[in-house]
Order: sequence, then C-alpha cells, then structure tokens
Amino acid sequence: MAVTSFQPPIRCLLGPGPSDVHPRVLAAMARPTVGHLDPAFTEMMEQVKAMLREVFRTGNDLTIPVSGPGSVGMETCFVNLVEPGDTVIVCQNGAFGGRMKENVERCGGTAAMVVDDWGKPVDLGKVAATFKQHGPVKALAFVHAETSTGVQSDAAALCRMAQENGALTIVDTVTSLGGTPVLVDEWKADAVYSGSQKCLSCMPGLSPVTISPKAADVIQRRNRPIQSWFMDLNLVMGYWRGGGGSPRVYHHTAPINALYALHESLVMILEEGVENSWVRHARMHNALRDGLEAMGLGLLVEKPYRLPQLNTVTVPDGVAEAAVRTELLKRYSIEVGAGLGALAGKVWRVGLMGASATPANVTLFLAGLEDILSGMGAKIEKGAALPAAQKAFAA
Amino acid sequence: MAVTSFQPPIRCLLGPGPSDVHPRVLAAMARPTVGHLDPAFTEMMEQVKAMLREVFRTGNDLTIPVSGPGSVGMETCFVNLVEPGDTVIVCQNGAFGGRMKENVERCGGTAAMVVDDWGKPVDLGKVAATFKQHGPVKALAFVHAETSTGVQSDAAALCRMAQENGALTIVDTVTSLGGTPVLVDEWKADAVYSGSQKCLSCMPGLSPVTISPKAADVIQRRNRPIQSWFMDLNLVMGYWRGGGGSPRVYHHTAPINALYALHESLVMILEEGVENSWVRHARMHNALRDGLEAMGLGLLVEKPYRLPQLNTVTVPDGVAEAAVRTELLKRYSIEVGAGLGALAGKVWRVGLMGASATPANVTLFLAGLEDILSGMGAKIEKGAALPAAQKAFAA
Repeated sequence: MAVTSFQPPIRCLLGPGPSDVHPRVLAAMARPTVGHLDPAFTEMMEQVKAMLREVFRTGNDLTIPVSGPGSVGMETCFVNLVEPGDTVIVCQNGAFGGRMKENVERCGGTAAMVVDDWGKPVDLGKVAATFKQHGPVKALAFVHAETSTGVQSDAAALCRMAQENGALTIVDTVTSLGGTPVLVDEWKADAVYSGSQKCLSCMPGLSPVTISPKAADVIQRRNRPIQSWFMDLNLVMGYWRGGGGSPRVYHHTAPINALYALHESLVMILEEGVENSWVRHARMHNALRDGLEAMGLGLLVEKPYRLPQLNTVTVPDGVAEAAVRTELLKRYSIEVGAGLGALAGKVWRVGLMGASATPANVTLFLAGLEDILSGMGAKIEKGAALPAAQKAFAA
Repeated sequence: MAVTSFQPPIRCLLGPGPSDVHPRVLAAMARPTVGHLDPAFTEMMEQVKAMLREVFRTGNDLTIPVSGPGSVGMETCFVNLVEPGDTVIVCQNGAFGGRMKENVERCGGTAAMVVDDWGKPVDLGKVAATFKQHGPVKALAFVHAETSTGVQSDAAALCRMAQENGALTIVDTVTSLGGTPVLVDEWKADAVYSGSQKCLSCMPGLSPVTISPKAADVIQRRNRPIQSWFMDLNLVMGYWRGGGGSPRVYHHTAPINALYALHESLVMILEEGVENSWVRHARMHNALRDGLEAMGLGLLVEKPYRLPQLNTVTVPDGVAEAAVRTELLKRYSIEVGAGLGALAGKVWRVGLMGASATPANVTLFLAGLEDILSGMGAKIEKGAALPAAQKAFAA
C-alpha cells in the first residue's frame, strides 16, 4: 500500500452541516501550532470566550468551546447536571431529542418524554402537562433548532415554563447559533451547547457551551463525581479560567489549530454583526423558498416554525430522492442531506448555513435541482425558480 | 472590543507535546471541508484506518482515530471495558496513571493501585504480587511512555502478565506511538490509545485507538449500556465501519479537517518508515544526552528506561527553572515543559517528537540553554555541548 496525500473535491456544502468553511478560517487553521500553555495562545483563549459570549448573547463566565463535536457539548451538559435518580423532561420532535434521552438514561436519570411528530415544534401544552404529572424535575431539555427536521421551537417559552417549575434548562442550539436568534440571558437558559460547523462556518470538531451561574453552582455542589473525567467542567475550567487569580491547570491538550479556526470564524461573524447574520440567513431562506415554490416544490415545516438555515424540502411523488442527491453531487458538486428517521426518503435537507448562505449558492442549487428533476421527468414548473429567487434577493 | 485575526508566534516545540507540525500537515488541514458522508471522505477514512494499523503494528479491525484529544482515547477504553464492580489494576508511576485511576472509579470500578516513584518504570514484581492479592481482575492498565516523567515501562512483559492472569490490558501509548516500538499484536495488547500531537506530529485533537477482537467481544457482550453515548464504540463503529456489508450510520459529525491532517501525518511516517522513525528518535535523543552531559547536566531517568522522545533534564542546583523556560521562549522562541507533580521545579521536560526530532532543533536547544544558563551564572561546562552533539549526529 502506498497511500498518497488526500486531495478533497471542492464541494458546495448545502447539507445539514458541515457548511462551507471560509478561506479565512481555513487559513487560520493552517497557522503554525503553538503549545496549549503558550502565553500568546492563552491570550487568544480569552478572546474566544469573550466572542462566544457575544454570539450567545450572554454574560455567563462559564462560556467555552468544548474540545469535541456537538455531541460532546450535549453530553457535557447532561453529565455535569444530571445525577442518578433525577427526572429530566426531554422534548423529542426529531433525531436529537432521542439522543438527549440516551444521555439522561446513561447518567442514571429518568427521561420523561414529550414526543411530537417529526416536522412539528415542541408542543408547549404537552410540556406543561408533563410538568404537572411529575414531582420535582431537575431539568427540561429540548432542541431549539432540530437539524433532522428544520423546525424551530419556542425556546423563550420553554425556558420560562422550566423556571416557573423550578427546573434547569438544557438547550441544543447546534444549528441555530449564528443563524437565528439565540438569546441565552434573555431566555435565562442554563446549559446551552452548539457546534462549530453550522452557522459559525468553522470546521467540525468543537462545541461552544455556555453555563449559567445557577447551573454552575449546581455542578459545584454535586455529591457524586461526574461520570466523565474528560467532560467534568470543574476540571475543564481549571484550564479555561481567566488570567486573574489562580493559574491555569493542565487538563487536556487543547485542539490548538481548531481553536485558531474558531477564533477566526468568530471574528468574522462579529465583523458582520450577529444580527446581520440572522438577517442574511432569513433572506437566503426566503429566496430559496420562493424559488422552490415557483418550481412547484414545498417545504415540510409550517411557516412559523421553519428554520431559515435548514430547509426540509418535500420530495415530489415518484422521484427517487437518493438519485437526485447523487446527481447533484456528481454534476454540480453540491451536497444536500437525506431525510433521517421518520423522514427518510421523504425530504431533502438543504442547509444554508454560515458561509454557505449566499445568493450564489441558492442560485446554483435551484438551477441544478431544476436541471436534474427535469431530466428525470418530474412534474415541475420550468424556468420559474431563478426569477423568483432573484426577486427575493432584491427585496 | 474589536478582536482581529490571531497570528501565532513561530515556535520551536520541544515540550511534552504538541510537537512541531510539518507544513505538509498544516497544508492538508487547510484543504476545503467536505461532508462526513462524502464518498471521497469515506474512502479517506479507510486509508486512515489502514495506516493506523501499520503504525500500531496490528491487524485489529477496530482501529480508528477517536474524535477528541488523548484523554478521550483513554476514557473511551475505560468506559467501554470497565463495568461497575470490576477490579482494574492500575500502574501509577506518573501523572497519567493517576488519571487512569480516576477513569476506573468514575466507571464504578475498583482500582487496585501499583504505585512507583515518579521517574521509575512500573515494577513488574509489584504487579505480579497485586495479581496474587486479588480475585478476578478485569484489566491491567498502564502507561507505556509516561509523558510526565520520560519513563518507558516494559509493555511486553506487562501484557504477558495480564494474559497469564486472564486480564485484559489497557495501554497508554500517547507519547510512544511513532517514537519507540509500539507492537500491539506482538504484545497481544487489548485496548491501546494514543494522541495525534506527539510523535505523529499532527496537531492536537485526535486520539488513535485500537481494540483487539477479544476486547471488542467483551464490549459487545456487556450487560449494561456504556455510560458515555459519545464514546460508545458500538455506536462509533457504525460510522467508522468499512464499505462492505451494512452501510455507514451517522453518529457524530467527524472532525473533517483534523482527519485530513492525521491522514497526511500518517502518509509521512509511512514514507519515512515506522522503524526509521524509531531510529531517528533514538539518534536525536543520543545527541541531546551527549550534549547535556558534556555541559554537565543530567537526565532524571536511568538509562534503560529513558524515552528518547521525552527527556527529563535535571535542573542544576540554584537555577530558577521557570526563568530558564521563560528566557528560552523569549529569546529563542523554544518551548520546553515544566516538571509536573512530584517533579515540579526539579526538571525540564524536553520533547524531541515527530517533526521536532531534528539535528537543527537539538543544536538550537543546546546552544540556547547554554547561553541562558551561562548568563545566570550556573556552573556548566561551556563550549562542550555542541561538539558532543555533532559527534553523536555523525555516529
């Protein structure tokens, strides 16, 4: 075997993540590696924390990128907060709610499930009823932006309900952060995690996490040790704490170059302005939607609950959905996502996240999809999508 | 606040890791991101697995890079193999044995400790006695190459002893892999983890792990679920399994660009030849040792147990060790490590790992150290170190 250097194809990433990584972020990642205790590096760490606070809209001191993908961010929140015997209400309206249930159970907790159909938002009435049915509830866990369905749930209302019932909140904002408003302090959310590779357009592998002072206090006052050494926030914070007071303590070797990349992607979103980024995502979504509708295609999710950055497009009758994805990749080097679970075969998941959310990409995708569907003999309106999208861009 | 792009200083990384990352690896990491299910990417994943098997000297099917730093590789081995009530013999002769103990206990197991002084190898006699004292032992866990002390223990003998006692082995090769012989199949080791940022000279953030068929069988036949969802190898393997048979199942979004980098670093070590890499590390160590001894400095570890890639250099009497590290960084941009735990203030940890293990770096370090120690008035032999090292390079 003589393996040679890997040269990846150039893709247009319009799936559920990773999104396109901007050349500035790729360049930052390739800068020379320094040590994880280098004074220049630890200064950069403080900037990353400060910028994450701005993007999360929080003043939480405990705001850091966890050294692993979004799943590690999720597990970090659960293992630190959930102890054996705790009851956690878990809202499941897609794939990631199911993963939250797994997390609660592996921590020895009981998951009280609030189940909604894939494609629907979390039903507030059901959550209220579940709180009534149960005694003390340690936490309410829900996914703000379900990447498997393209649905956004009402995070503000869910957090309010948890507070009224004396429960903490664990909120998945993997796909929402940077794309639609994530307002940690306004919501009074307690443990919130995200991913680097969605609307922040950094490469995958890091998970921004922010913990409220109330939740941090719960973690510090635990009786039992946290079951994960790597994810134990009491230890992790020994390394990530600020310069003043006690010195940084080595916990694990930080992923230096990945953090360079996250730093650059945060610099970029703050240059644009977080609100401007939300507006851009909404505008690109509108153009995509108008183009698809002009073509005769529909979106799965009802209008008020649609995530602009993750569009579940209904596959027209008689069209082989996998073949369309294969052709998009082969002929246009465009990646879109397949439906997961209950939606397998029924939808495409079209992401317009971060650096991928541009008029050029919306245009390319609509043109490519029309070409491929036409070639397959699907019943679509031809020639209407691009003018509709262009009208939306101009709006 | 207006944070600008981060421009790291150019360092010469001669600490306990990360080591210098070769420009080819940095360039690979900066290639455009593709999706984690892209056919081009999944083909690359198979190459990574095959190359890791060559470096680990194993035929183990379950050989993958875990998506996190070495600590995640460690925890992956423990959470998958150790169940509540299990007894694990843990050898502790430095910082990382202590971390293994934490892992066993957080899995609900009992750690039977075999403690040796920092700077000494694991005492085989004590391990044998500990096996005798205990009933059934689930596993023997030890650190092959202690990064905190620069000591190598006898992995072959320890694995043999475990087999004779019907115990599995969990072996930390974070600092040894690629630098000194790691012979997984010859040792019949069961769960072996390493890090990307030491002698493989990839950037930090990935942990190569290999699991024997026997250990994989133990994992599959567990009664209890594995306490970590993220580290559950039964799930992780759904994504990393080969092309034949059942299709890949999404588990978490792989750290795409980090894996490009690991791929390139593996291509490079196989171009050099794994044995040649071991020889290079030994030669650079000899030159460093000869240079240090000519200067009048000593190494902490007795000769037969010295790790060539991690040298614990004794701080001369009356020398402020931290000031020397500060000056090395300030004047020569060289990073070396401080002593940890019992060795704090007593040693410097000088790594010659991967791309850092070159005659140029040994020369620069010896020259810089001599300059700084002379300036501090330390009693050293002047002008002797470089000729001694040059003689060793020529040997």
